[in-house]
Amino acid sequence: MNTFENVAVAKEANIYFEGKVTSRTILFKNGEKKTLGIMLPGEYEFSTGNKEVMEITAGNLHVKLPGSENWETYVSGTVFEVPANSSFKLIVKETTDYCCSYIEE
Amino acid sequence: MNTFENVAVAKEANIYFEGKVTSRTILFKNGEKKTLGIMLPGEYEFSTGNKEVMEITAGNLHVKLPGSENWETYVSGTVFEVPANSSFKLIVKETTDYCCSYIEE
Repeated sequence: MNTFENVAVAKEANIYFEGKVTSRTILFKNGEKKTLGIMLPGEYEFSTGNKEVMEITAGNLHVKLPGSENWETYVSGTVFEVPANSSFKLIVKETTDYCCSYIEE
Repeated sequence: MNTFENVAVAKEANIYFEGKVTSRTILFKNGEKKTLGIMLPGEYEFSTGNKEVMEITAGNLHVKLPGSENWETYVSGTVFEVPANSSFKLIVKETTDYCCSYIEE
């Protein structure tokens, strides 16, 4: 089992879009923060504060990154980055499990 | 923020019912195991291995415990227990955030 060790986990979930997107906040001892999340099929738009690195653990989704005219497809094992202070659109085709890393720049 | 400290978290989600029920596995240094989960509205039946203590962090659901003829309602801040090696039925009325503890007897 692939695990994050010696971390703190928030007991309460982050819940968006009536539960169709949810995540758990993971805090590392070095101050790093990640969320582990699930997105059910649907269309969503999110805004970023810090830069985000989104690693797809399972699922299938289309992503339109800020400044791009194109939708790109991401599946298990792929990664995309979203700049700080921007927004991006998602069309989730299959229930998607992800790990999002928040990068302070 | 209420957190579990110094734990290991599985990177991959546990996904049931096409993503309508998902959870994250948390392992404690003393060997204890919990899952933090989300259940979207719907009707579900689950089987237990170990005894389970289900703490509802947010939401609203009806539960029919093994051996009971009655449906009981649980909301944020309430807890119910499910015996080992049994099954229980749930009708989730509102997106429910829970913490499940697995008790070895």
